[in-house]
Amino acid sequence: MVLHKFSYSRMFTKDHIISIRDFSKEEIDYVLSRAEKLEIYARGLEDRKCNLLDGKVLANLFYEPSTRTRLSFEAAMTRLGGAILNLSSTESSSVVKGENLADTIRTVSGYCDVITLRHPQEGASRMAASFSSVPIINAGDGAGQHPTQTLLDLYTIKREGLLDGLKIALIGDLKYGRTVHSLAYALSLYGATLFFVSPNALKMPEEIKSDLKETGAEIFEYTDVKEVIKKVNVLYVTRIQKERFPDPTEYSKVAGTYRITTDILKENEDVVVMHPLPRVDEIDVEVDKTKNARYFTQSFYGVPVRMAILSILLGK
Amino acid sequence: MVLHKFSYSRMFTKDHIISIRDFSKEEIDYVLSRAEKLEIYARGLEDRKCNLLDGKVLANLFYEPSTRTRLSFEAAMTRLGGAILNLSSTESSSVVKGENLADTIRTVSGYCDVITLRHPQEGASRMAASFSSVPIINAGDGAGQHPTQTLLDLYTIKREGLLDGLKIALIGDLKYGRTVHSLAYALSLYGATLFFVSPNALKMPEEIKSDLKETGAEIFEYTDVKEVIKKVNVLYVTRIQKERFPDPTEYSKVAGTYRITTDILKENEDVVVMHPLPRVDEIDVEVDKTKNARYFTQSFYGVPVRMAILSILLGK
Amino acid sequence: MVLHKFSYSRMFTKDHIISIRDFSKEEIDYVLSRAEKLEIYARGLEDRKCNLLDGKVLANLFYEPSTRTRLSFEAAMTRLGGAILNLSSTESSSVVKGENLADTIRTVSGYCDVITLRHPQEGASRMAASFSSVPIINAGDGAGQHPTQTLLDLYTIKREGLLDGLKIALIGDLKYGRTVHSLAYALSLYGATLFFVSPNALKMPEEIKSDLKETGAEIFEYTDVKEVIKKVNVLYVTRIQKERFPDPTEYSKVAGTYRITTDILKENEDVVVMHPLPRVDEIDVEVDKTKNARYFTQSFYGVPVRMAILSILLGK
Repeated sequence: MVLHKFSYSRMFTKDHIISIRDFSKEEIDYVLSRAEKLEIYARGLEDRKCNLLDGKVLANLFYEPSTRTRLSFEAAMTRLGGAILNLSSTESSSVVKGENLADTIRTVSGYCDVITLRHPQEGASRMAASFSSVPIINAGDGAGQHPTQTLLDLYTIKREGLLDGLKIALIGDLKYGRTVHSLAYALSLYGATLFFVSPNALKMPEEIKSDLKETGAEIFEYTDVKEVIKKVNVLYVTRIQKERFPDPTEYSKVAGTYRITTDILKENEDVVVMHPLPRVDEIDVEVDKTKNARYFTQSFYGVPVRMAILSILLGK
Repeated sequence: MVLHKFSYSRMFTKDHIISIRDFSKEEIDYVLSRAEKLEIYARGLEDRKCNLLDGKVLANLFYEPSTRTRLSFEAAMTRLGGAILNLSSTESSSVVKGENLADTIRTVSGYCDVITLRHPQEGASRMAASFSSVPIINAGDGAGQHPTQTLLDLYTIKREGLLDGLKIALIGDLKYGRTVHSLAYALSLYGATLFFVSPNALKMPEEIKSDLKETGAEIFEYTDVKEVIKKVNVLYVTRIQKERFPDPTEYSKVAGTYRITTDILKENEDVVVMHPLPRVDEIDVEVDKTKNARYFTQSFYGVPVRMAILSILLGK
Repeated sequence: MVLHKFSYSRMFTKDHIISIRDFSKEEIDYVLSRAEKLEIYARGLEDRKCNLLDGKVLANLFYEPSTRTRLSFEAAMTRLGGAILNLSSTESSSVVKGENLADTIRTVSGYCDVITLRHPQEGASRMAASFSSVPIINAGDGAGQHPTQTLLDLYTIKREGLLDGLKIALIGDLKYGRTVHSLAYALSLYGATLFFVSPNALKMPEEIKSDLKETGAEIFEYTDVKEVIKKVNVLYVTRIQKERFPDPTEYSKVAGTYRITTDILKENEDVVVMHPLPRVDEIDVEVDKTKNARYFTQSFYGVPVRMAILSILLGK
């Protein structure tokens, strides 16, 4: 396979993937187009085996469980012909026993060619990067960043042909939801029109909205999905956690309102329904069978996107 | 390596391996003969490396620990040149956190080419198969099926040259023992003569016996190993769990009676002793050194049998 | 890659790696020189991929957590092109549920080509070796041996060009420290001059000292690092555990005395600082930036040394 060589050193601070905010639109475009080239190899098809990272080693360093993300990275590395070293969350804690993250990173970076780091503490990845002799990929750091999730969300939208002139509803907990903050930022680079749909108690924070407006995004706010469904191409649904509401009856009322059902989808037959998964009941299982449902495909797209990131970081 | 192409789609319901009862005798024969061809590659010998599943990915999804079964599948996949994604039992529970099995299966099947599933709930594998985009192999579902165990038991008997005209004693807990139920069914397809040896409280259930008689198996029931040892080619020993007996002294009496020792084996020097492992003390460690002991070989045979299953399911 | 074939059968008792005391000086030299040839492949460099153990399978059987050691073996096996089966400590305990180590070893050795064993019980590895059909590598057994740690310590010293005529200070808990006992023994084969630096309560045991003197090692004992730093080429620092001291104030006093700082290092600008890791605060983090620090390099050297051991044991 011949791919255009990526001069990643000019693109990412310190050759690591820490935050989507470190990316320009051009850099995101480059990752997405690389992912498109690699997608065929992500499917495990006959005669479509890729050896781009043959002999390379990825270490997954997960200080909190995130099986879905870990498996997606493993699948990506495996589909590229590379190998994997795993530190599960329980084992990671034993690494740390009497050892700071810096020492662990220095040790583990001697065993591999690239590290994915999941850590409960915001900023852990950027700190880790300063001690690592190999690239660090932030796979989620607390309330902070999870840039490959944003990239796979963008990839899903692009693969639907909707990235240019996109109108998207971001639905659910917009106050605490890390995923929607990062996605909104990235979409603002593409001039998307953003419809924020949330209960009043969980609205998009003011400072994020003003950031977005500065990049030129058009923003509308609603409290009811029904009011926006006809206006958008994509419903991006996220979970509303019970714990955010002091009063359980308040939660039940709210959760019902933000639930996507086949009934609601009758209002816009072409709308694409996305979700970062796992879902609880924000999307009725009946929706799974509709042509609107795209969340399992979206989950699969994590593989080609992470293949793109891994191959770029390793200079392939 | 050139192997006869297997048209598995005509053979297994939904292209999955769920229950030994889904297999005809011809289908079992096919798997066993494929395993014989692959056995040489299972041994890790020089110049005997197999790349049949190079580039393919197996995901082990174990909702309860079963290290022996998992490792055996991993060894099989590895010996075929394939790669492995692992969800340990503890991690699986975190996948499931607020997620149903259907969603997990749909997600994980986007990351791999074949899934082995171990689940505490009977019927979980068949349900999982209906949601999976890749083949599911049942690696044990509660009191239900564990078809690859039965296939490796049959393979062991075949490799001893005993499958035709077999006379076998199934010994131990025949009431609750999933392994012996499945094995008895499969052996009935081969016209084996079955000697059931158990305490009265743990006899083979009536409905299973009448099923077996319908397929034409000859069945005899005993409560004492000594009475049958001269009549059979194989002793298939299983554990009797203490918990089955309300009275501990009753258990001690029974356990002693069903224990295989070098003394008992003097009655039939050629008898082959099998056990699905792990054993507790149903087989005395002194027996390990005799030429009768075949349980560790039997355990190894799990590798070529699972290699056969994996390669067949993946159309190789 | 063509490497001189190693007739390991003449070298290691039972073809296993159990204790550094089973090694002659010539055998250690052989391992170290093999490691030097393999080091380039340990670095994951472009066009430096090694397939020496392609198709071979290593099983890590860890009955207690030791992520650093496990990862180092995994990295070594992966860099040689081999595959890995993992039993984490929690899973291992479930293997053992009602099963003795002998049965587990016999089963697992049917799934792989080589086993690393970590076990809390002294002597476990030698016992395991007697039941295994494949080589066992002792990856630490309780208060017993951890021979690959000693080999990587020696390799680090050799790579510094200091193995001949070495003067080394072994610092810290010399009474209970398994690592320093094994290293002192191995260094005595090379005629090293040994400076033991420890609190009086944690001095090198008499029987070990008399053993060392028999092999011809010159030994000196001190209680203060400052007294020896000008006399040696290497400071080998180990942890002093709080639990060894009934009185916490006594510990604090001692720990401070044995702490390596940039101040102390001014006394000998060329001294090499080693540590088996993880460290707590025996070495100040400021030392990391000095040219004396070699402990992270030492940790990386575990990879080529374990590559050497694996390839030798598998006859490559």
